[in-house]
Formats: sequence, structure tokens, C-alpha cells
Amino acid sequence: MQKKPQNDLFLRACLRQSTEYTPVWLMRQAGRYLPEYRHTRAQAGSFMGLATNPGYATEVTLQPLDRYSLDAAILFSDILTVPDAMGLGLGFAQGEGPKFEKVVRDEAAVAALQVPDMERLRYVFDAVRSIRHALNGRVPLIGFSGSPWTLACYMVEGGGSDDYRLVKSLMYSRPDLMHRILQVNALAVADYLNAQIDAGAQAVMVFDSWGGVLADGAFQTFSLSYTAMVLSKLKTQHEGQRIPRIVFTKGGGQWLHDMNTLDCEVLGLDWTTHLGQARAKVGGSVGGPGKALQGNIDPNVLFAPPAQIATEVRRVLDSFGKPHTDPHSSGPTHIFNLGHGISQFTPPEHVAALVETVHQHSRHMRQA
Amino acid sequence: MQKKPQNDLFLRACLRQSTEYTPVWLMRQAGRYLPEYRHTRAQAGSFMGLATNPGYATEVTLQPLDRYSLDAAILFSDILTVPDAMGLGLGFAQGEGPKFEKVVRDEAAVAALQVPDMERLRYVFDAVRSIRHALNGRVPLIGFSGSPWTLACYMVEGGGSDDYRLVKSLMYSRPDLMHRILQVNALAVADYLNAQIDAGAQAVMVFDSWGGVLADGAFQTFSLSYTAMVLSKLKTQHEGQRIPRIVFTKGGGQWLHDMNTLDCEVLGLDWTTHLGQARAKVGGSVGGPGKALQGNIDPNVLFAPPAQIATEVRRVLDSFGKPHTDPHSSGPTHIFNLGHGISQFTPPEHVAALVETVHQHSRHMRQA
Repeated sequence: MQKKPQNDLFLRACLRQSTEYTPVWLMRQAGRYLPEYRHTRAQAGSFMGLATNPGYATEVTLQPLDRYSLDAAILFSDILTVPDAMGLGLGFAQGEGPKFEKVVRDEAAVAALQVPDMERLRYVFDAVRSIRHALNGRVPLIGFSGSPWTLACYMVEGGGSDDYRLVKSLMYSRPDLMHRILQVNALAVADYLNAQIDAGAQAVMVFDSWGGVLADGAFQTFSLSYTAMVLSKLKTQHEGQRIPRIVFTKGGGQWLHDMNTLDCEVLGLDWTTHLGQARAKVGGSVGGPGKALQGNIDPNVLFAPPAQIATEVRRVLDSFGKPHTDPHSSGPTHIFNLGHGISQFTPPEHVAALVETVHQHSRHMRQA
Repeated sequence: MQKKPQNDLFLRACLRQSTEYTPVWLMRQAGRYLPEYRHTRAQAGSFMGLATNPGYATEVTLQPLDRYSLDAAILFSDILTVPDAMGLGLGFAQGEGPKFEKVVRDEAAVAALQVPDMERLRYVFDAVRSIRHALNGRVPLIGFSGSPWTLACYMVEGGGSDDYRLVKSLMYSRPDLMHRILQVNALAVADYLNAQIDAGAQAVMVFDSWGGVLADGAFQTFSLSYTAMVLSKLKTQHEGQRIPRIVFTKGGGQWLHDMNTLDCEVLGLDWTTHLGQARAKVGGSVGGPGKALQGNIDPNVLFAPPAQIATEVRRVLDSFGKPHTDPHSSGPTHIFNLGHGISQFTPPEHVAALVETVHQHSRHMRQA
């Protein structure tokens, strides 16, 4: 059994337990904005060379922790590992986004889809084990996956998209085929996250990065219900510890009441949602049920000078309001994060200003 | 004085007056998906050659009306004509989006910005006059402009953007400069829309296409308040007719309560918002104040076969619910539209299925 983290604030906040300050981590915190990351990636030769090598994945996962007092680590990987393991052939052309060799657009391709053998994703679980070992209890490790819908977007489009024309054309024309893709994806994502938990992930996050492009109604049918299916199959405990589950739908702020029905501990929010209003809707009260909230500063704030970054960080913390401080009960809690992944153009020293302000101001709020 | 339109359902619905069916028009209804548009554009040589020639602009504005029973026409133009008239030099490279020769990113460029002489936009007002003449009262003509914030996005970025990094960097770093840009834009947009009204536009629409990329708080400060400034300066009557004003913020569904404070008649919605919920928030009741709602089907629905298009159209109409039918009072009304511009890849015959279903089903709803 691995030891509990020395800094368990992130896990405590996920479970709506009081903490002495607001924990913070950043989506894509291990990434291209860090020169040390670019150095490791150059050694690895390619993005997939980096992601599939547990040694490199461990190295880059820990890099931001050595620079900043972050309260959690997140597995370095890609959200498209699962469709890659399904045989679609993931590649990253220089300077471009991900591209699949095969796409899933017709009846035959949909019929051929299967939940992949998790052995093909062993490099991910090896990375989780390696990172846990290297962390040695400093902070908790978060595992993750793309949501069934978000994976389907890439599988149908074959890569990123501006308008989601192909995946939505399939969804509106042949909802039966779309449901079959999403069902396979949901089963695969559940297996994948459970294997990450077995390997040592102490919390898991479902990135529904493209749920927000769906129409009201379609979101609930084609994204939310399959995220719910994943959650229904996840382990909630491992080695005696609870495993919190985070769901983040970018652009999902209007569907908070629907998302509140999910069997998860934390909801992630992007910057368009007012945290205080979200808290009122889904945050619950002390002693009552509710969701912890994660987010939600605009990553572009990090392009401002440190003084303005501090102002905006305080504004986001204040918009949530004072988290509960009752050590004997659960209640509304906030995990500070960006509302989306950090930009590759971010000046690294600006991240320090953000992290320090989160810690300082959130300690101050609890004393006020 | 020009005569009232024979089909005034669109104007009546804008003013929350009852109509025998739900009027429909489509954002970007005159555009590349129509072969006759592509033919005219080829004759014009370029997009700006098309937009700056009142004869061509008239021709393409009327093209969709000849194919479909649409209930309104919208001026064929571009949202970037105003910054172009400010001297930024708008161009459209082949197969790419708009690009400005000059960008507004520093103190000197901001200081040099001025409300342009409307004489430089005379081609737009000439087009409005020409289109009104050609319409000869068939349906009302809508004029439009980009919102101050949306224009600022293009002026700072120099073109489209994935992440709005440059405009948000300026906004967070130098809010004083951003406010100055937005103030100039608001005054220019107000002059521009008033001149369109003088030339014959019977309703005007402000496209806040990029308001939804802003953080909560920043939206109210940097987008909404400048849209409000535009509205405060607009003529509300012309030649004895009321001129309804429509505001559409793509991605603005979470801010409906804020948008309800705008002095306009109609709010446009994208597909992520449930029309019935929006109606409950801002649609008002019979005899009481409220906004008409415009929208909001996902343009990608048009890639499905006609039977599925009809199903989705009925779903959107039903989500609004039965509009009020009291001929002696104002009350909740709906103008059917897409939630964003029509895709250039849309099969033209699919648009007919949409328009016909809107008319048929909305007549049926009123009788039920």
C-alpha cells in the first residue's frame, strides 16, 4: 500500500472537507510553456514518444511541481490514447493537432469498434505507477480520460474541428450509429479509468472538452448520459481510500442542474460561469449534499503582468466566496484551476504569481 | 416614404405581437451554400468586390428569398466594414478568413482610432436603399453590425482567432486601452446602424459573435455595456415605423438575466440554450414587458436528411412552446433562426425542408 500524500488538500477539497487554503492545480500544467518540458520532448523525439514512455511521462509530470507549489499532479498523457488503442492510429504532425489514420464515419467502421484490450494501454498504467513512486507522497495524482462524446468527436472528425460538422452530421442523421460509438467509448473509458485507479491514480477526471458544442437536448442525450454510464462503472475506493471523480464540460455552464445529477464529487467549470452562482445551484450547504467546484480563471489572464494576475485570481476566489471551515462536516469547497488548459505561450513566471496568490488570498479569506 | 412590407410577420414578432405562424430567416442566408451566390461572387471577383457593389449586394441578398419562403431579408455585407472604414485595411485571402493590414495593439494605434466618416461606408447605405427598392415590400430588411467587442477582437487579433490571446492580453493588461477601443467602436456602430436605418433598414441586429469567449464579469464590462451604449444611441423609429433592435451574443446563454437589461426588443440565442427556459427568464407574459426570442437550431442539423430536419425543427419550436395569440396585446413571441450562420457546405434543398416545417408546424401549434 502506498502512503497517503503529505499534502492532501486537493483530495480533501474534492470530498468537500475543509482545508486551510484553496488547493490549486492547472489543466495541462505539464506542457509546452515550460522550457524543461520542451527539452524532454526534444529528447523523446515526438509527442507520442513522450506520452508512451513512462520515464519521460514521469519526468514531465513532476516538472511543474518543482517550479510551483501546486497541490496536485496530473498524469501526463493524451485524451486520445483510448481511440488509438482501438486501432485508429493516432499521430501528431509537426505544428498541428492530433490526427487519426482511420476515421469512424460509416456503418462498417462503427460495427468494427470494440473496447480495446487494456494491455494496449499498459504504458499509461506503467506511467501512473512510476509517477506515484516518484511523487513519493508529495501531492495526490489525478488520472484522466476524454469523455465518450469528446472521444467520438475526434474519432469521427479524424482530428480537431471548427464546426463539428461531420460528427454532428452523423449524430443527426444516424443517431443509432452515434449511440453505438458512445456505448463502446463509455465502456472503454470506464475500463481505462479503473485501470488507472488500480495503478495508483488517487482521483480521476473526465474531460468533456467538446460537450459544450452540443445543442441543448443533444448534450443530455449524447454526452451527459454516457458520462453518467462511465461514472456508474468506476471504482469509488482503492486501498481503503476514496477516489474522487471530477467531470469537466467546457461550455457546460448552462447545464449545471443536469450535471448535478451525475454521481461524481467535483464539477469543473470554465470561465464563463460565475462560481458563486454555480455554488448556489450545486455546491450544497454545510452538512448537506453537493458538489465541490473546480475552476475557473481564463487562461489568458496569465498574459497580464503579475499584479493584474493577482487581482483576477482574487476576483475568482471571491466569486466563489468563503469555503466552509467546519472540520467536522462536509460543505462547499473550491479547487482553483484554469477554465481550460494553459496556453503554450504563457510566461512561466506568471504561473508563480497565480499559485502564490491563490494560496495567500484563500488563507486570508478563511480568517476574515 | 416606402411602403410597409406585404409580409410583416417578422417585424410583428420582434415587437411581441401575435402572428399566424412563426417567422423564419437564417443567419448568413445569402451565402456560399447557394450556387447562385457563388456565381455572383465569381463575377464580382472577390468578397469585398461583392460587398462594396450595391448591385451585387442586392442580387445576393434576394437570392435566398427566391428559393425559400423566408420572412425577412438581411443586408449582404460583412461585420468588419466599420474597422475597414477606420483605415485598418480589410482583406480576404483566398480560402482564408478576414485579415486586417493594420492591427490595434499598442497605445499609439489605440490613440489613432477614430469614429470613421460614414461617407466611407456609403456603399453599405446605397446597398440598403437598393435592396429596399428591389424587395418592393416583399419582406422586411434587417441591417446589422458587429458589436463593439466583436469588432475589437478582429481589430486586435488582426483576423480570426482560436484563443483570443492577443485581445484578452490587452484587455487584462491594459483595460484602459481596451475601454478606449470599445468606446470608439460603440460610437461608430451607433452611427453606422442609424445610417442603415435612415437608408431603409426596418430592423437592426448587433452580432456579438465573440461575447461568449469572455469570462463572467469581463463579458458585462467589456461587451454588454458597450452594446448597451450602442442601443442607447439608436433611432427607435423611422418614417413612423418602429425599428426593432436584435442583440445576439453567441455563447451568451448564461447571461440572459444581464442581457434582459438591454434596451432592445429581441434577444438571439444559440443552440445551447433551451428556448422554453429562456422564455421563462426573459420572454415575459401577455400584456407584460419582455423580449422576443430569436433562434436557435444547430446549423449542423441541416446535414441530416429532410425527415430528421423536420423532427429537429419541431423540437425547437416545441421547446419555445406556443407563442401568444392575443391580437390585442403583446406577449411572448419566437422568430425561428439558426443558432449561428449557415454552413457553406449545407445542401440547399435541405433549407427548404427547414423553412416549410417551421411554417407548417408553427401554424399547427397555434391551432392546438
